[in-house]
Amino acid sequence: MTAITPIAEDKMFNGSQARYRHFSASCQTGMTFSIYLPPQALQSYQVPTLYWLSGLTDDDENFSIRAGAQRFAAHWGIALVTPDTSPRGDTPDSDGIELGHGAGFYVNATQVPWAEHYQMYRYVAEELPALIEANFPVTDQRSIFGHSMGGMGALQIALKNPGRYAAVSAFAPLSHPTNTEIGRYAFTAYLGNNPETWAAYDPTLLVQTATAAKLPIFIEQGDTDELYPEILQPKTFVNAARAHGFDVQYKIRRGYGHSYHHIASFIDAHIEFHADALGL
Amino acid sequence: MTAITPIAEDKMFNGSQARYRHFSASCQTGMTFSIYLPPQALQSYQVPTLYWLSGLTDDDENFSIRAGAQRFAAHWGIALVTPDTSPRGDTPDSDGIELGHGAGFYVNATQVPWAEHYQMYRYVAEELPALIEANFPVTDQRSIFGHSMGGMGALQIALKNPGRYAAVSAFAPLSHPTNTEIGRYAFTAYLGNNPETWAAYDPTLLVQTATAAKLPIFIEQGDTDELYPEILQPKTFVNAARAHGFDVQYKIRRGYGHSYHHIASFIDAHIEFHADALGL
Repeated sequence: MTAITPIAEDKMFNGSQARYRHFSASCQTGMTFSIYLPPQALQSYQVPTLYWLSGLTDDDENFSIRAGAQRFAAHWGIALVTPDTSPRGDTPDSDGIELGHGAGFYVNATQVPWAEHYQMYRYVAEELPALIEANFPVTDQRSIFGHSMGGMGALQIALKNPGRYAAVSAFAPLSHPTNTEIGRYAFTAYLGNNPETWAAYDPTLLVQTATAAKLPIFIEQGDTDELYPEILQPKTFVNAARAHGFDVQYKIRRGYGHSYHHIASFIDAHIEFHADALGL
Repeated sequence: MTAITPIAEDKMFNGSQARYRHFSASCQTGMTFSIYLPPQALQSYQVPTLYWLSGLTDDDENFSIRAGAQRFAAHWGIALVTPDTSPRGDTPDSDGIELGHGAGFYVNATQVPWAEHYQMYRYVAEELPALIEANFPVTDQRSIFGHSMGGMGALQIALKNPGRYAAVSAFAPLSHPTNTEIGRYAFTAYLGNNPETWAAYDPTLLVQTATAAKLPIFIEQGDTDELYPEILQPKTFVNAARAHGFDVQYKIRRGYGHSYHHIASFIDAHIEFHADALGL
């Protein structure tokens, strides 16, 4: 277990909003994450952790700045952890926003030049929770949510790790990436030309083969989102999940787009959904 | 009355978060402001307007992104308007953050090279409210609040315009600028060497000569703020205001700093304070 180094800390809603740097064994480089500890965690209670996975171009800070989630994390007594969306610094990058920095797609890359550092699945699903649980006053209860590319990440990580997350939710998730140009482009670069290797990261394909405990799922989608429905395809995922016995809440939000204005407007409902699943 | 041009609009909390550009007659250049219209304003009701004045280096967007105020503006039915903190673009600037772009100090500059464009007092106190009330479904009920340099601006504007604002509040306001190095530096540049001309923009001096209707005042201050108490001097203002008959709420927030983490944590209390003063 490597050391974590605080780089910022500030009081917020009677808890603590902070950023830390650490060397990631998965990504073989320094990584930054943000964490909000609710007041309960500063008063010697152990609290569950809710992981947020961000979308393309975000880093670990967009969510903590824009979503207004800390008010409800403080209310329910939940820690919020936001990893970055990719390795940064002296690691491979591309000119486009779909690949490289800010676009890790939460996969374990197998292709040159990405494989050496772009191990975001392993980092988010395994290394980071172990690090959080070793260093902060949290229990081993976890839940996970995200936005767009990060909604895809939250869904595939939750579906592949039965029992590790109490619930999963997503705002405007990229729900069936292998059926979209951007998903095929990123998966080809990171995983190679064989579509069979892509299926492990496609929520709509994964949900049809998930055999273990069926966690509750909450998906929401703004109907003026410029990526909806063609690219995001949330209903395709919802239909597949329901057909395979998952309890899925699906909400269309009329007039909302793809931004944090949508997320901030309904973040309270998502945190309450996770709080309920966590038994709070 | 010049035209306003929308440059962004997005649904938020069932209302509308937008940005507009317009030519300012006061500042003789294009200016940008942000406005949140609550759902009530989109349903053919007229609502009161709460103006937010930001601190050094901010533009019109920091508050709308970071404060989480829209949730409570939607709840109470109040429009939120945030001007920029200075003229921008092809107008005079300085190398430091204390003068020029992002640092208008809400004064009417009289000195070269600032006087031509830096007329932020006239812009915020007169031109912008007229523009807002001509173009949006708002009443002529107004209230005003701000942070740091913007807390100073809110206090001096409210004190000099009795009857125009229902109440005034501030997070960590620069309360007695003529008694600080940064205040004297900015006022000398914008207003010249005669301290008598500075008094019109110093809340602690103004409050001692205010003779008209005494509006309610709410000041709060984080006690780990690196600018507290030496630079901000809120208690000096509070004592002077109370000595001259103002009803002042003053709260010290233990462990809070000078950032939007402090503002977001208590924004609900400020909006409720203004809602009460507005009769909502």
